[in-house]
Amino acid sequence: MPSSLSPPGSRPRGRAGRADGIDPGAVSPLTVNRLSIYLRSLRQLREQGIEKVSSQQLARRFHLSSTQIRKDLAQFGEFGTRGVGYDVADLVEHLAGLLGVDRVLRLAIVGMGNLGTALARFPAFNSGNFQVVAGFDNDPAKIGRRIGAVIVRPTSEIATLAPESGAAIAILAVPAEAAAAAYEALGRAGIRAVLNFAPATLPPRPGCRVKNVDLRIHLEELAFFLARPE
Amino acid sequence: MPSSLSPPGSRPRGRAGRADGIDPGAVSPLTVNRLSIYLRSLRQLREQGIEKVSSQQLARRFHLSSTQIRKDLAQFGEFGTRGVGYDVADLVEHLAGLLGVDRVLRLAIVGMGNLGTALARFPAFNSGNFQVVAGFDNDPAKIGRRIGAVIVRPTSEIATLAPESGAAIAILAVPAEAAAAAYEALGRAGIRAVLNFAPATLPPRPGCRVKNVDLRIHLEELAFFLARPE
Repeated sequence: MPSSLSPPGSRPRGRAGRADGIDPGAVSPLTVNRLSIYLRSLRQLREQGIEKVSSQQLARRFHLSSTQIRKDLAQFGEFGTRGVGYDVADLVEHLAGLLGVDRVLRLAIVGMGNLGTALARFPAFNSGNFQVVAGFDNDPAKIGRRIGAVIVRPTSEIATLAPESGAAIAILAVPAEAAAAAYEALGRAGIRAVLNFAPATLPPRPGCRVKNVDLRIHLEELAFFLARPE
Repeated sequence: MPSSLSPPGSRPRGRAGRADGIDPGAVSPLTVNRLSIYLRSLRQLREQGIEKVSSQQLARRFHLSSTQIRKDLAQFGEFGTRGVGYDVADLVEHLAGLLGVDRVLRLAIVGMGNLGTALARFPAFNSGNFQVVAGFDNDPAKIGRRIGAVIVRPTSEIATLAPESGAAIAILAVPAEAAAAAYEALGRAGIRAVLNFAPATLPPRPGCRVKNVDLRIHLEELAFFLARPE
């Protein structure tokens, strides 16, 4: 963990730090989400043996905007050749590096109720660059049980077991009233990224990023379209 | 259901149709998501007894962009008075109408495994304007059991029970290999909006909107920030 006493610029970067000069605070989460979508689309093309693609082809095929693609990528360097397009394999590699998914990211799940159990077994959380490596719960009936690839451990062990397992991202799947204590424990464990499913607001903590999952927003998006005739 | 033989413009609008002249196809899902966030923020202000708010105050308080707020709202009419701001109660009412959440929207869950069970009990899916009214599964061990507020019914009954329950939105929480058949059955049941958690691509169907939930995109957003020093 970077010491809070280090002057700016002198912080140890650690294994995870990229010296790519990109200020993560200057890049909006929406841009990052679009980069994820581009990466996914390009990987599909690569699997199909496609070597070159233009922003227009990419846009048409995956229902994206070609102007947005060019604008987003231009933020991070020079890619593609006018009239030829992008080299698919090169761009996949570059985007994976940019997104930090060119290595395995280990996940710890706190709260092994129905949601935590579903996430522990979720293919998307156990393939590619993600891997569930730890699961924690308070319930004595769950502790010691195998769920997906992990053996459930008591939440009292988060502070030691989360770092030992190499977990980089924690997933909070506890009830609202248990969220604050679990978030505290994750802080003591040195976890710097939290995906929060609990309907609770977590206080900001320097050096830790919290992403709140709001499933209701998807229902509201569907409601908007339902409220109107086709 | 509007008949596919009706010429454009002559379709029956039904209970759900809004004659507000807004073409839902012309409004991006991102705009709809921002409207949801504004509505949530304004409801908080209303609960706190705040009657007027400017776009700047709203932006500062909820970490939004005031230019974006004004631009988004301007798409849907004239709100607010220069120098005074928006009337909180009025804007709440208007946005709820615009989003189609000024009435109860009933949800049917298909697949009552861990994820379906978690969603059936999820506070956000059982409060405010949303209510889980039906749950379906193929597993004889689950059929007839009460989960959250519903009794699990066999998936073979989707076509009759989904319309009877008044469900407007279906939530697909089945494994990938079961998604296509469940989606078909929902079509026969007249369901026009599907929130899809299954890692499967569902073919477009006229008159039906599918929103795919991609939880991995959140992990990739966290990975981007983890890959860089604070």
